[in-house]
Amino acid sequence: MEPSSLISLAHGMQYLTEAKAKILLSRYGVPVVEESIATNENDAIKRSEVIGFPVVLKGLGTNLTHKTERGLVKVDLRSQEEVRQAFRYIKEAAGTDWEGCLIQPMIQGKREFVAGLYRDAQFGPVVMFGLGGVYTEAIGDVVFRIAPLSRLDALGMMEDLSSRKLLSDFRGELAANREQLTQTLMGLSQLGIEHPEVMEVDINPLIIERDGGVVAVDALVVINKDESVANNTLPNKREAMERIIAINAALDVMTHPKSIAVIGAKRSPSTSHRNILDCLRDFGFPGKLYPINPNVEKLYGYKSYPDLFSLPEPVDLVIVSLPAKLVPKIMMDCVATGNKNVHIFSAGFKETGEEEGIRLQAEIEEIARKGGLHVIGPNCMGLYVPESRITMWPKNSSQSGPLAFISQSGGHAQDLTRYAHRYFGINASKVFSFGNALTLDSTDFLEYLAQDDETRIIGMYLEGVKDGRRLLELVKKVNRTKPVIILKAGLTNFGARAVSSHTGVLAGGKKIWNAFFRQSGAVQVDSLEEMSEVSMAFLQFDECRGRRVAVIGYGGGVSVAAADECSKVGLDIPALSPDAMKKLREFIPPAGNIIRNPIDAHQLFFEPDLLGQTLELLSQESYLDMFVIFLHLDWLYQNSGQNREHIEKIATYIATEARSRTKGRPLIVVWRQYQDIPEINELPTVIGQILLKGGVPFYNGLTRGVNTLSKLVKYHEFQNNQLVNINQ
Amino acid sequence: MEPSSLISLAHGMQYLTEAKAKILLSRYGVPVVEESIATNENDAIKRSEVIGFPVVLKGLGTNLTHKTERGLVKVDLRSQEEVRQAFRYIKEAAGTDWEGCLIQPMIQGKREFVAGLYRDAQFGPVVMFGLGGVYTEAIGDVVFRIAPLSRLDALGMMEDLSSRKLLSDFRGELAANREQLTQTLMGLSQLGIEHPEVMEVDINPLIIERDGGVVAVDALVVINKDESVANNTLPNKREAMERIIAINAALDVMTHPKSIAVIGAKRSPSTSHRNILDCLRDFGFPGKLYPINPNVEKLYGYKSYPDLFSLPEPVDLVIVSLPAKLVPKIMMDCVATGNKNVHIFSAGFKETGEEEGIRLQAEIEEIARKGGLHVIGPNCMGLYVPESRITMWPKNSSQSGPLAFISQSGGHAQDLTRYAHRYFGINASKVFSFGNALTLDSTDFLEYLAQDDETRIIGMYLEGVKDGRRLLELVKKVNRTKPVIILKAGLTNFGARAVSSHTGVLAGGKKIWNAFFRQSGAVQVDSLEEMSEVSMAFLQFDECRGRRVAVIGYGGGVSVAAADECSKVGLDIPALSPDAMKKLREFIPPAGNIIRNPIDAHQLFFEPDLLGQTLELLSQESYLDMFVIFLHLDWLYQNSGQNREHIEKIATYIATEARSRTKGRPLIVVWRQYQDIPEINELPTVIGQILLKGGVPFYNGLTRGVNTLSKLVKYHEFQNNQLVNINQ
Repeated sequence: MEPSSLISLAHGMQYLTEAKAKILLSRYGVPVVEESIATNENDAIKRSEVIGFPVVLKGLGTNLTHKTERGLVKVDLRSQEEVRQAFRYIKEAAGTDWEGCLIQPMIQGKREFVAGLYRDAQFGPVVMFGLGGVYTEAIGDVVFRIAPLSRLDALGMMEDLSSRKLLSDFRGELAANREQLTQTLMGLSQLGIEHPEVMEVDINPLIIERDGGVVAVDALVVINKDESVANNTLPNKREAMERIIAINAALDVMTHPKSIAVIGAKRSPSTSHRNILDCLRDFGFPGKLYPINPNVEKLYGYKSYPDLFSLPEPVDLVIVSLPAKLVPKIMMDCVATGNKNVHIFSAGFKETGEEEGIRLQAEIEEIARKGGLHVIGPNCMGLYVPESRITMWPKNSSQSGPLAFISQSGGHAQDLTRYAHRYFGINASKVFSFGNALTLDSTDFLEYLAQDDETRIIGMYLEGVKDGRRLLELVKKVNRTKPVIILKAGLTNFGARAVSSHTGVLAGGKKIWNAFFRQSGAVQVDSLEEMSEVSMAFLQFDECRGRRVAVIGYGGGVSVAAADECSKVGLDIPALSPDAMKKLREFIPPAGNIIRNPIDAHQLFFEPDLLGQTLELLSQESYLDMFVIFLHLDWLYQNSGQNREHIEKIATYIATEARSRTKGRPLIVVWRQYQDIPEINELPTVIGQILLKGGVPFYNGLTRGVNTLSKLVKYHEFQNNQLVNINQ
Repeated sequence: MEPSSLISLAHGMQYLTEAKAKILLSRYGVPVVEESIATNENDAIKRSEVIGFPVVLKGLGTNLTHKTERGLVKVDLRSQEEVRQAFRYIKEAAGTDWEGCLIQPMIQGKREFVAGLYRDAQFGPVVMFGLGGVYTEAIGDVVFRIAPLSRLDALGMMEDLSSRKLLSDFRGELAANREQLTQTLMGLSQLGIEHPEVMEVDINPLIIERDGGVVAVDALVVINKDESVANNTLPNKREAMERIIAINAALDVMTHPKSIAVIGAKRSPSTSHRNILDCLRDFGFPGKLYPINPNVEKLYGYKSYPDLFSLPEPVDLVIVSLPAKLVPKIMMDCVATGNKNVHIFSAGFKETGEEEGIRLQAEIEEIARKGGLHVIGPNCMGLYVPESRITMWPKNSSQSGPLAFISQSGGHAQDLTRYAHRYFGINASKVFSFGNALTLDSTDFLEYLAQDDETRIIGMYLEGVKDGRRLLELVKKVNRTKPVIILKAGLTNFGARAVSSHTGVLAGGKKIWNAFFRQSGAVQVDSLEEMSEVSMAFLQFDECRGRRVAVIGYGGGVSVAAADECSKVGLDIPALSPDAMKKLREFIPPAGNIIRNPIDAHQLFFEPDLLGQTLELLSQESYLDMFVIFLHLDWLYQNSGQNREHIEKIATYIATEARSRTKGRPLIVVWRQYQDIPEINELPTVIGQILLKGGVPFYNGLTRGVNTLSKLVKYHEFQNNQLVNINQ
């Protein structure tokens, strides 16, 4: 029977019978147990003998779910008599739900897994794999991948399990057949893609036999034919492409506007935000500014207009900063006057969680949709584009740079750009604070930035997303050439609650987002500070060969800490080869200088050229991929005769000579400065500037530096794996 | 048969038979399966019928280990015939190792656990509990406790399992009998304590039956009678007490010396450390200083002496700063001249990992032991005691304070004291940097600090420890009145390698140290910064009722982040009661001020008294235990008309009025300042001082603040649990 016929049989049904479920799954490459159906005792016995004892008997029927709990599964039946008794018991216990008995061989294998499919609100069909059997829920060792799955995704699921040891040779049983497992997981993925009416699949247990063979022993398939209709209305590809082109064009206009109208241009007494008109003027916006306010003649030196209709021309961007209840009227005006590009600054919509706000948002969404408006917001800070001299918040750097940022929070948009600029001298290309995402969502901005020449790295702050699958596809694509660094909020329970009240978007579960990160290769960070730190490294290093680090510092405690920190984030600190140690010993004096990895050698910080020689030598060692130099500023200051210049000299040496000797392998500096001595309190800033010039990322403390390297390593491992996979 | 007879039977043996192992365990309260032994087929069948089918047959014999792998366990035997076949098979397969067959009922239960006992090099007998059955090693869900176990420890082991759900009602089976589990774990503990010759015990599986009953189905006991002798030579209690009294007296003299001799007083060209004599003089040490140097007349203005023999008196402290190879001679001089208290600054001993260093350390250890010397070091920075004006490193605060620090690393000793002083104004009482711990180990310093009136909080940086059990007992005791905050390095693999090379002490495994922290209640931190942050909170708050936090801040992104951070560290952010929300709404205007938890209300930061009213109101809510105020300094500055004074006013208000309205519930401030604006760059320091005066801890960023509260909560939960347990 073909899949579609099987599914169509389910008309009006909730579940397929176990037998039909397995036929369906076998069509998608899932190895299922051989089985047959008996409707009377003697037939059951005959079939059991054909299969060979021991066998398993199960009640069969469309309404027979939770068979184990109902006692309708009898395993390890070893004789005719046991089969007969089991048959009678099941038939009696199942009552009117009984349609027959399923007879299977007793599959032998200690290892029980679970595989499945379900539909996530944001990401659509999602495949699950994990430890099965009775412990499934109690232990919860399961991983997810968003469909469609590649072979790499399927193999990755096996790697990600905590109990992955069970897939190798195990207590006398052979390693699991990875090909069969891959087929099973990719088959579930394909089923999910091809049949939107399949809502859920549960294969539990999926047994690994003694010889490593994989067998689905029980399966549950849930069908919902009503859902299938809704889910099947996929957007037309051409329509989708046209939409992208239109949005890209609109965003290009909005980020390079020649004229802006600001509605609600007067500072409201109830809000404490700096006035937008003020910000634009201060930032030197060179285009035309039209304040809209019917009550005044002039505002901030500009002629004021009573409404959009009275403007001399349609503008490139309308900014709305009025109380929420006045916004629908303005939106209608925008449609009527041909002003298509709107940024709604105002809050008071869906994010309030209150009825009135939700209603207002639905209302403006309808107006925007019908009128073809492109809307950033509501409930957001909007745009910051240095090259166009536009900003909606004050005190921004006027320099343009390589980092773009897409943020659901306006506060975070400001904080990230300020932090990255202050501590790492990183300037922004384009920043979008988009709040409730009325028409333009994170994916739209990402699509735009993908083709923006100025942007080399993209940061995102996400609470939720409307179309998770589009986000995944897009990030996966963009990330190949422009690292995408994502701070995903609301992965925890409380966070999730605050998210749903903050922007009114339902955030997905943590495990699904883990899948998103594993599949997209996006760099996951936990804070805005980390996003800045990681950006710094990605801007400096295009390559990273592996996860093996050499640390050069001073002090036993620091060495131990370096080793601990590396281990925590999965970096290796390989032992130095005897040959390298011998060569190092030739120019590093023995007293108090310990040659191992981490290298603990004060002398290198008093004769910088020794540091250069050390790096040059280590860069010839094939088992080292990256270098960390630890600068203990307090110690250096005290022990160089309180000589600040000496420390600056070391920094300069690292930024020039030392850097050039590492043959392009990543080199970072981590520093510590705890003493409160005015002469050195400014040192971190000073050496930061020196190192920045030389392209050496620098971090406050080991933890941050080592964490950043781990993200760099993971990114390049992912990209290399993808390449290998494509080339296979 | 009594335990000692059973064990004595094991003379010359490695393993007890399964049957004897279970008899031994049952004597210690472990519920074991009823079983009997048969040595012929008919007997086996008869006994099976008495037990009732199905039964289990196992080969029995002193040399029969790994029975499952050898196929000597036959389960689920349902008839005379199956028993007969199993008996024949086992007897044949076991060959000459066969001594009989063990017959047990087939225990019914889906849930298999494992319990055991083993001896750790540092901590002695340790009890294990975890998920059992075939998955034990593959999943590794096991926890440990150091013997002796209290009831609370045993119950804690169950709570700490990831798979603890299995101990509740589970798929139609009843919750596990906790009393039996507790008996099992405490019994293993007692067995380990009473019988040092029992090296290992493995109970696997320990089955939870359908009715919740606990049954040990298989057990392995490993005996080593030779070990027992070595392990049994416990120190005499009185001797131990006398040693403590002597050490406390010596440490009292060393921390309050009237005279100090410094050997190696001249700055060595090969070391970059500041000279100790110089440090002592600069710090204003008021006692007598005797430089020892045969080559000069005077040093730093002090008369120099050729050796210890030429001194006019024995001194309270001898500091040795000579190359390692010269140290043994000096140690002998110390013994000969009656100079008992020595600090060996010199490195080059066991920490080098080289033969010569290890030999030298053994040599001086022998001299110290025979001569009754009290030695701090070698390879350490030594002492910093502000009240006595002694320090071995420069630029220390001359103020005495409540925080003591015991550190295996000299660098960390300096960094911690500087950081805590600089950022939180915390001064030190006594700091011990003790390096290789020749005679005085961390436990000795802890014992001394326990009775030091000046010390209110004790920080420790540990790489390894010689006597883990003494550390556990001591920390558990001291921690009740003086919080003990521990940074344990080398918990990871790489870390562990660096540790063993750094101070030559074998560090224990991570799981055992987890047990140490769970049992001692010590506050575990990951960095010196965190140790300072946590100290700040512990110094301010003596009480903490629970883990429920209210956050007051501004901005949606911040609210989401606060919820995420709290959730990560296990704190709750309960929803506000409708009544509280209504009352808050009475004085907080609606526009842009969202009343929920986290509270997102800008108005509170423009009218500080509203903040006070809010705190007062929330302090009457029974479901809130702690308060966090988020100060976004950039935002406050921009939105208060760039008014620094306004921000200082808020800080002052929080430190005085707001603090007083929280009724003693912990209140902390977390701040963010990212903008690089000279006028506000100093603000964190300024508001820090204001808040410090009012006893309000303040943290750079949410993560740190919330983390600190979680440590405070855990500490008080532990202490309260201990009290409840004692009172039962």
